[in-house]
Amino acid sequence: MDMHDITRSLQQKNDSKIVMLVADGLGGLPQQPGGLTELETAKTPHLDALAARGVQGGSIPVKPGISPGSGPGHLGLFGYDPLQYVIGRGALEATGIGFELGPNDVAIRGNYCTLGPDGKITDRRAGRISSEESAPLAVKLRDVKIPGVEVFVEPVKEHRFVVVLRGQGLGGDVHDTDPQMTGVPPLQPKAANPASEKTAQVAAAFIEQGQKILAGQPKANGLTLRGFAPRPALPTYGEVYGLRAAAIAVYPMYKGLARLVGMDIVGKAQTLDEQISVLEENWSKYDFFFIHFKYTDSTGEDGNFAAKVKRTEEVDAVIPRITALKPTVLIVTGDHSTPSFLKSHSWHPVPTLLVSDCCRFDGHTEFGERTSMRGGLGQFEAKYLMPLALSNAGRLGKYGA
Amino acid sequence: MDMHDITRSLQQKNDSKIVMLVADGLGGLPQQPGGLTELETAKTPHLDALAARGVQGGSIPVKPGISPGSGPGHLGLFGYDPLQYVIGRGALEATGIGFELGPNDVAIRGNYCTLGPDGKITDRRAGRISSEESAPLAVKLRDVKIPGVEVFVEPVKEHRFVVVLRGQGLGGDVHDTDPQMTGVPPLQPKAANPASEKTAQVAAAFIEQGQKILAGQPKANGLTLRGFAPRPALPTYGEVYGLRAAAIAVYPMYKGLARLVGMDIVGKAQTLDEQISVLEENWSKYDFFFIHFKYTDSTGEDGNFAAKVKRTEEVDAVIPRITALKPTVLIVTGDHSTPSFLKSHSWHPVPTLLVSDCCRFDGHTEFGERTSMRGGLGQFEAKYLMPLALSNAGRLGKYGA
Repeated sequence: MDMHDITRSLQQKNDSKIVMLVADGLGGLPQQPGGLTELETAKTPHLDALAARGVQGGSIPVKPGISPGSGPGHLGLFGYDPLQYVIGRGALEATGIGFELGPNDVAIRGNYCTLGPDGKITDRRAGRISSEESAPLAVKLRDVKIPGVEVFVEPVKEHRFVVVLRGQGLGGDVHDTDPQMTGVPPLQPKAANPASEKTAQVAAAFIEQGQKILAGQPKANGLTLRGFAPRPALPTYGEVYGLRAAAIAVYPMYKGLARLVGMDIVGKAQTLDEQISVLEENWSKYDFFFIHFKYTDSTGEDGNFAAKVKRTEEVDAVIPRITALKPTVLIVTGDHSTPSFLKSHSWHPVPTLLVSDCCRFDGHTEFGERTSMRGGLGQFEAKYLMPLALSNAGRLGKYGA
Repeated sequence: MDMHDITRSLQQKNDSKIVMLVADGLGGLPQQPGGLTELETAKTPHLDALAARGVQGGSIPVKPGISPGSGPGHLGLFGYDPLQYVIGRGALEATGIGFELGPNDVAIRGNYCTLGPDGKITDRRAGRISSEESAPLAVKLRDVKIPGVEVFVEPVKEHRFVVVLRGQGLGGDVHDTDPQMTGVPPLQPKAANPASEKTAQVAAAFIEQGQKILAGQPKANGLTLRGFAPRPALPTYGEVYGLRAAAIAVYPMYKGLARLVGMDIVGKAQTLDEQISVLEENWSKYDFFFIHFKYTDSTGEDGNFAAKVKRTEEVDAVIPRITALKPTVLIVTGDHSTPSFLKSHSWHPVPTLLVSDCCRFDGHTEFGERTSMRGGLGQFEAKYLMPLALSNAGRLGKYGA
């Protein structure tokens, strides 16, 4: 029996509203031992006021010591065990550029490469060709025609692109054609199981036609395919929680992840303030709102402590507009930590704040790493945040008599 | 390998005594944000003195965010994973009224209903007939005779009763006969698997004879059967822990739950003071004592904050009599929280105190929600409390060399 079996059987409907504000990469580190983190440095009067009537904890994205990517990070927050539900690389790449995968799709990551006259790879990334040079090539590759299969090709950054094959009977389990070394030709696509034989054949046809289209390109005269993946089979928020859920995000990746769990993507906001306006406009239509803010992560990735502090203060500034709506449950968290000290995602528990009338106030009056690690929610795996949200919203019945 | 595989293989015998005092529904909430909980409001000098030489923590009954019933709540405290061990509805109902289920029993919840002249249900609960009216009907239903099967019928509250079928070859998997709606006749009992075919036939015979007995009743002239369940197969305290265990409880439900895990029910105490006398009298005969106190839960369910405070102080008052016995390990906990603010069981971790000569004192000198959430035991799933008790009693050997 997993948590979704429980939430499925115990879910109750009511008029409550749950808001989950995700400041991507929220958790941080001090610049030197004993110093303050970005969140602790930031002036966050509104978050601190929430802390004074809420409960904090440290959300462990996957398991202690594991730094997640955006996929597992968000799956955890959404209540999907990130070790049980794995989004294949190709599917995540497609999701990240906003491609809406269907049930008959196989998504694949493509790389342009440079081939010598003998057909052997001389550069696996085509000299890290610029996006400006590579984008038109993706458009050219759309000329590939394969009977009975729809083929989509979308540019990604630099030497990367995405291929989506749409058709009946396309299993998702095909080995990479990138040999991971130079001096050898690309591998032929090989099915890992009988259900993926047709996919391998279609991929081979794509490569054959694609090579012809690319022939003559100075750098990107070849291609490899990696990370074959079907659309992940994730149960929806409606089914597992009984929630009508809306996602208010700016970047395609987060819209895509939210779509995979059955959230509606609402609004066309470009700024956090616009996102809150979208929240206000849609308040009556949904039970659950996921709001995604990217820049606490990107500034952390840049190693820009001061900029991350400033971005954290931007998050604080919109809190009054959210609390004015009187959500039953308000959660402020991140999908993982991105300490500017590390310039990368990290494994550290993410400061997480939950406010409701029936949360058990833990006595803290500030929101930060040090308070959250001693907070009333303790340290918990991110996947338990949704059950906590539902309970605090009165949306879960009693387990057993 | 589950925890019981480990405790089975590592258990050691000695002369230690473990006392687990369960104040049902112990955990609470403040009446307003920032206020004190029931336990924090109560004057508990003896519990505070224990805290000053013990270690606290927050016991999560099932998983974060899940509010348990009494069954899963106690299974967790007893060290049985409440997601792995599920007590069927009928079995819990029988247990709750003190019926001692045997290995060849199937327990069933019965409802009186009102049938129209066409045999269709007009009221699924027989007008919520009073217990005074319904109790004699259960006695009448004992006239049902089925060859080869012993039939027990016991009154419960209002429109409810319990049927226990005892005999060879009675599988427990039969679908409910309650159609969950009016305007249709009750369903026929249908076996969910071949092993339960005989049970379904016996149930059909019970219904046929029962209807005849009830015919002519003004309201309760029909019946439905629900929650067919065998006696749950729980390993015993003796087997998994090597403990001779005694339960000192007032209410049938808790005696029943204790009996299911192989505890002896001792004494006939009606008050907490009498329960402690039973503890004293049986001190030499057992290794483990489960003492159940109901009223911290019932006052919470009533939403009576002041009464729950008073009941908590009653628990505190008996502590000196327990410590006078010098238990090796003394645990004070609850099976779940019942905040009077919510008037119901809740998901909040339960303040839990463990005292032994080798517990690691955590520096707290009071016992309450805020101290326990920052206590030395951290926040832990209730099922780990028994292994902690055993270790503190020197009853678990080393795992691996």
